[in-house]
Amino acid sequence: MSTDPADVTAYRASAHDAGEVGRLLHDFNTEFETASPGVNVLTGRLQSLLAGPSTIAYLIGHPAEGVALVTLRSNVWYDGPVALLDELYVRPHRRGHGLGTLMIDQLLADATASGISAIEINVDESDVDAQRFYERHGFSGRDPSTGERAFYYALEL
Amino acid sequence: MSTDPADVTAYRASAHDAGEVGRLLHDFNTEFETASPGVNVLTGRLQSLLAGPSTIAYLIGHPAEGVALVTLRSNVWYDGPVALLDELYVRPHRRGHGLGTLMIDQLLADATASGISAIEINVDESDVDAQRFYERHGFSGRDPSTGERAFYYALEL
Repeated sequence: MSTDPADVTAYRASAHDAGEVGRLLHDFNTEFETASPGVNVLTGRLQSLLAGPSTIAYLIGHPAEGVALVTLRSNVWYDGPVALLDELYVRPHRRGHGLGTLMIDQLLADATASGISAIEINVDESDVDAQRFYERHGFSGRDPSTGERAFYYALEL
Repeated sequence: MSTDPADVTAYRASAHDAGEVGRLLHDFNTEFETASPGVNVLTGRLQSLLAGPSTIAYLIGHPAEGVALVTLRSNVWYDGPVALLDELYVRPHRRGHGLGTLMIDQLLADATASGISAIEINVDESDVDAQRFYERHGFSGRDPSTGERAFYYALEL
């Protein structure tokens, strides 16, 4: 990968970038030993999702070395939509160079400009580095009045 | 409230029920000393949201004594949408009679029938009763392989 600074600008992916997004998400899950439906299935879904209004992806690098995936939903407590940062991944050899920060900064700027009311993330208990990273970017994992955590629960159907 | 069993069937709210849903959500936040934009603002938003495909509410009782609010989003890891149970509330004098269970059961049945892939919930750390309630209904708050929690982080914009 070039070290040209122009190469390390985060940019919003279009449906044409579905293959690069799918490849990075697949490699993410493979690295962390999580099941993946495979690059082809992910790419097919992303071609459809990225063409719609509710899924946003950021890429960084040419070829892309990092991805952020965001989905939007309505929320009765806010005027604007709420964004969930589903995934943030940077390839191992490119970590520690601020690529995650560049993608988060772009997300925050775009979210503010487009009237998104809040951004949410689910972070694993043991992933203290990620917790610190998000705290540095203004996210809070504790209720401001009680200091308590919120736990994420799920049921697959 | 009548004790006629016909009165305690959970039913899906339409946009015409926005006022009842908004009143219950406002009372929920007031009871737990959380800010609310007020019944009128909530009702206005719900009239629009409940007319669309991505926000679902269940009510129970006539007049309604409980509400469940659900929003849908796309997710690249699944074929179908993912549902987030944003709120589940039963009026204090009606608690302990299984109204929450009736709403959850209806949600699970409808979600399965409509191809929803997963249901997610954020539960406060101290709300052990809610954690037990959701665990009884099949939800898990821990990673099945590591046993660890996922924490919910948020940033309001």
